[in-house]
Amino acid sequence: MKFPTLIILSGGSSSRFAPLKEKMLFKFLGSTLVEHQLKTFKRHGFEKIVIVTSENNFDEIKNEATRVTPNLEIVIQKGEGMAGAANTALEKIGDDESVLIVNMNDIFDDGIFEKLKAHLGTNPSENLFVGFYSEKYFPGGYFTLDGDRVVGIVEKPGEGNEPSKIVNMVFDYFPNAAVLKKYMAEAASDRDDVYEVAVDKMMKDGIVFKYAEHKGIWRTIKYPWHVLSMMEYYLSVIGGQEISSKAEIAKSAKIIGHVVIEEGVKIFDNAVIKGPVYIGKNSIIANNALVRDSMVGDNCVIGFSTEIARSYISESCWFHTNYIGDSVLGKNVSLGSGAVTANLRLDEQEVKVNVKGERVGTGLIKFGNVIGDNVRIGVNSSLSPGIKVGAYSFVGSGVLVDEDVEDHKFVKLKQEKEIKENVFDITKTSRKDIQTGLKNTLSK
Amino acid sequence: MKFPTLIILSGGSSSRFAPLKEKMLFKFLGSTLVEHQLKTFKRHGFEKIVIVTSENNFDEIKNEATRVTPNLEIVIQKGEGMAGAANTALEKIGDDESVLIVNMNDIFDDGIFEKLKAHLGTNPSENLFVGFYSEKYFPGGYFTLDGDRVVGIVEKPGEGNEPSKIVNMVFDYFPNAAVLKKYMAEAASDRDDVYEVAVDKMMKDGIVFKYAEHKGIWRTIKYPWHVLSMMEYYLSVIGGQEISSKAEIAKSAKIIGHVVIEEGVKIFDNAVIKGPVYIGKNSIIANNALVRDSMVGDNCVIGFSTEIARSYISESCWFHTNYIGDSVLGKNVSLGSGAVTANLRLDEQEVKVNVKGERVGTGLIKFGNVIGDNVRIGVNSSLSPGIKVGAYSFVGSGVLVDEDVEDHKFVKLKQEKEIKENVFDITKTSRKDIQTGLKNTLSK
Amino acid sequence: MKFPTLIILSGGSSSRFAPLKEKMLFKFLGSTLVEHQLKTFKRHGFEKIVIVTSENNFDEIKNEATRVTPNLEIVIQKGEGMAGAANTALEKIGDDESVLIVNMNDIFDDGIFEKLKAHLGTNPSENLFVGFYSEKYFPGGYFTLDGDRVVGIVEKPGEGNEPSKIVNMVFDYFPNAAVLKKYMAEAASDRDDVYEVAVDKMMKDGIVFKYAEHKGIWRTIKYPWHVLSMMEYYLSVIGGQEISSKAEIAKSAKIIGHVVIEEGVKIFDNAVIKGPVYIGKNSIIANNALVRDSMVGDNCVIGFSTEIARSYISESCWFHTNYIGDSVLGKNVSLGSGAVTANLRLDEQEVKVNVKGERVGTGLIKFGNVIGDNVRIGVNSSLSPGIKVGAYSFVGSGVLVDEDVEDHKFVKLKQEKEIKENVFDITKTSRKDIQTGLKNTLSK
Repeated sequence: MKFPTLIILSGGSSSRFAPLKEKMLFKFLGSTLVEHQLKTFKRHGFEKIVIVTSENNFDEIKNEATRVTPNLEIVIQKGEGMAGAANTALEKIGDDESVLIVNMNDIFDDGIFEKLKAHLGTNPSENLFVGFYSEKYFPGGYFTLDGDRVVGIVEKPGEGNEPSKIVNMVFDYFPNAAVLKKYMAEAASDRDDVYEVAVDKMMKDGIVFKYAEHKGIWRTIKYPWHVLSMMEYYLSVIGGQEISSKAEIAKSAKIIGHVVIEEGVKIFDNAVIKGPVYIGKNSIIANNALVRDSMVGDNCVIGFSTEIARSYISESCWFHTNYIGDSVLGKNVSLGSGAVTANLRLDEQEVKVNVKGERVGTGLIKFGNVIGDNVRIGVNSSLSPGIKVGAYSFVGSGVLVDEDVEDHKFVKLKQEKEIKENVFDITKTSRKDIQTGLKNTLSK
Repeated sequence: MKFPTLIILSGGSSSRFAPLKEKMLFKFLGSTLVEHQLKTFKRHGFEKIVIVTSENNFDEIKNEATRVTPNLEIVIQKGEGMAGAANTALEKIGDDESVLIVNMNDIFDDGIFEKLKAHLGTNPSENLFVGFYSEKYFPGGYFTLDGDRVVGIVEKPGEGNEPSKIVNMVFDYFPNAAVLKKYMAEAASDRDDVYEVAVDKMMKDGIVFKYAEHKGIWRTIKYPWHVLSMMEYYLSVIGGQEISSKAEIAKSAKIIGHVVIEEGVKIFDNAVIKGPVYIGKNSIIANNALVRDSMVGDNCVIGFSTEIARSYISESCWFHTNYIGDSVLGKNVSLGSGAVTANLRLDEQEVKVNVKGERVGTGLIKFGNVIGDNVRIGVNSSLSPGIKVGAYSFVGSGVLVDEDVEDHKFVKLKQEKEIKENVFDITKTSRKDIQTGLKNTLSK
Repeated sequence: MKFPTLIILSGGSSSRFAPLKEKMLFKFLGSTLVEHQLKTFKRHGFEKIVIVTSENNFDEIKNEATRVTPNLEIVIQKGEGMAGAANTALEKIGDDESVLIVNMNDIFDDGIFEKLKAHLGTNPSENLFVGFYSEKYFPGGYFTLDGDRVVGIVEKPGEGNEPSKIVNMVFDYFPNAAVLKKYMAEAASDRDDVYEVAVDKMMKDGIVFKYAEHKGIWRTIKYPWHVLSMMEYYLSVIGGQEISSKAEIAKSAKIIGHVVIEEGVKIFDNAVIKGPVYIGKNSIIANNALVRDSMVGDNCVIGFSTEIARSYISESCWFHTNYIGDSVLGKNVSLGSGAVTANLRLDEQEVKVNVKGERVGTGLIKFGNVIGDNVRIGVNSSLSPGIKVGAYSFVGSGVLVDEDVEDHKFVKLKQEKEIKENVFDITKTSRKDIQTGLKNTLSK
């Protein structure tokens, strides 16, 4: 079986991901998404890979990708949209090669590759588009189907107008690079949907696009809260208790369920780890702390009596008597004792987040906060659900953060106090009175 | 021995009990006061029972009472005061029947029934009033005694003017309903003390009222904090560790002292239950939580690192890293992480509570809060000692609640903050410096 | 070997130690500094001791010193400076006696006494001054050395101008009291450095001052944070686990490292003691509390889920879900649940403290607070790093204390709130929705 050349799209702006940076470099189970993807593709047999980055993330993606897989083509996207990306990649690809186009941040389970291999084994000279069955309406492209063929794609049809229940994913196989190039060249315009127009024209011209349905896992990251969905997937693949022999775990600590605990980790007395959980190298889980359904990066300190629940914690974060729930934290973040991420609205309705001036629903009832890299938050501060704190920002003590904080800000509480003489002599009270109370048992 | 017909007074307004509702339906050890009382009276041999309710609580009391004991007379009180209640009940009672009048929310131990039975065995045709010995002055009625007879009752005599140390309780036995009816009819007026006037006249007319002294338990509920006193009593009757075989208790959880743990309860690692404690069905005591000297209703979640101390928690409450001390909470109450009930004044003096516009002393040095049904309280909020939060109210995050919150209110913090550029680059600091410190051992 | 008469200087104002009182009476390992010192000097062979106090602390020092060692001369200093103190003591000392002058609050290990004894064994008729080698510049007096002789002392030479690396300590041996008296008399003036001038003149006159270098421990207390340095030393001398047989320790409590646990102490389930730690008589370490690298005085309650880290806690303090880090607390201090001492600036720079109107660097990156005797602090309050709270003061709930609080003050939060109708009916939400979430796995 001849594998197509793989085009991995890694460009595009991450502005909706702010204040977090480069999502492809987020680590899950100790490896970046780039590493996960490259290893997955290699494992399935792909040999020639072209990665298309943006100008901004070229260096970072290149460093990481070549670290994992030395022989790669990595190019900076020229031109707009998916067509720009595809065309940039196709410059490195011969006209008679077959290609598969995927997104770097679309994570699938192996089933999708089985679908592809089946197609390559039987109809390698026909196009293949893979779709995803979605009961719920999803604001993407929908396939118009004719038997096992895709005959059209309708972008955001609106709920109730879907031509099928099958959502278009980017897992697009073309048996002949030249044909795709030619159609894109003909469709060329100022618009950013040249790729989509080209595909539509191919379909209209009767070129066969077989349809495969992916029924398994599909996770992707656009907004910060998608990190939690991605985390959930990677946590689900932990198969047992993988605990490094170089981790030190107190006898009274409880390790429950599936976990990965890396080397150098220390888990102190009475700490509880409730899997699925990943804990990165050299991190400390201090006395009486609880970590559940979460990932903790390297070199973190989950301090005394802190709970980390369903959260993604990047490396070098420090906590102390905190509750971190359903939140995504960047690197080198510290919270003072008693600071809390609130993860549930009082009215228990969907948490919404400000993204580029718009309120965007997260689809989550429980969602806490997004905190950028290098942030410090003072003791007893509170972050309202869905609030984002920008990178390199400080929040003082006792602050209620109910509006997003931009990068590089310092938020301080201005608190009005009354200071008067204290005329009460507390030494005249007796702790014994308190203990016994004035309790009136005859309490009519 | 012929038992009198029992008249149980369950009417009266509960306005002093606000924001809590119907006190007779509060559950202790899983049963309402109504159920406890009816079972107690049945056990002691009472067969005919008439319950007098108010118009407001008729349905609720009826539902609960008939659920427990199908054959009951339940009537809505007509007319004012105790005379109104007694007269309404007497309509259902034959003239030659003997009657015992009690309050639904007066709880006694068995000793009082022994006193009654002794009287019925020897002097069934004489009236019997039971009093309670009180060293401390109590703003109620006091018996004037002549040997073993009550010859008068002085209402609120004022401290130092008590005719005896014996406080009048409502545990009043009359051998002949007709006589009581007649005297009440003669005393009839617009005043609400017709019953008291009638009794006084009977005594003056030489009708014998024997006196018995109850030396055991007497608990009643008028104000919300009396729930704690009632709870204390019911906790005291738990005789050991009654743990349902359908409860799941982690090996490292500690169960100390006398407890009732109902079916479906889950107690997680490192949780501590310090009896006497009652935990209702399907409630969760999460990791590192502590429950002591408290009752927790059904379907509660006592979240991570929460302490519940000497408190009454109704069903369906959720907590997370909270301290709930000496407090009474209604149903479906949630507190965000770090929210605290303060249960001790800074000056360690008696906690007072606003009741219908007046400051009422609780007689307690340690008393926290009263929270109505269906309340949500945000993270890191603080409730001052003695504060009440009304039903269906929300309190936002970081609020200091130092005034009572009415029902159906939303209290939000308006916090002034200073937001400026953060010019400090935290990445230039080193965690290693912090760990080793700048500690100057030569510290002259 | 003839031991010199010991003059212990215990006078001087403690204004820089405010709001804490009499530092000589601070207890370490259950004994005051006075007791530690007198026992040390007795153990090394000193027989005649004269203590010089100020007028203010005479009674307290006398009571404590005579309790420990009945036969002592205790005098109130007359005149200014060290000369005033020395002269007052010398009135009690014969002209031909030799003397050693030391400070009550300078703590050394035994090495310094070995140095003295070596000198007494070989050159008892020559003066001896002991210095301390300091790599870092220290604003004190520096020795000018000539071989093994001190030939001059330069006060605060400024960094880079030190005549040697040897700092002058007060451990000054004079073989003949009369000579010292005479030189001080000749130097007498209004200035407060008469002692220093007299010594300088003696050196200029060719009187031999041998020099010894103390290489071991030297701890002293001037500012409140020096208590932590002193504590660190005394903790370091605990040699194992000295646990009273009259202490009660729950089986699940963890005692780690070197500790002293006095009689009557109770340590509850899941508490963790991480030595070096000292816990005074009858103190309670409650469930899930953590005490590490700290001293806790008698009769304290370290309540549920409280952490005491690297802190000095005087007797009769009460805590409840608090974090106390790198702090020094007076007697009878209570903190409400959730109150926190912040011990690290957001910018992680040196903590500074206001002392008599000046900002004084502590030399510490981690330093919390200083709290005077008889203080109450409300729930969820926050104390900024380096803040001092004066004795007999109250701080209400929810306060951010970011300025020092004087003695006898009452600081109350004035918080602006918005109170509106709550139109949302929370009973329409379902906990089941929250548990399952709206989680959108297809999260493009």
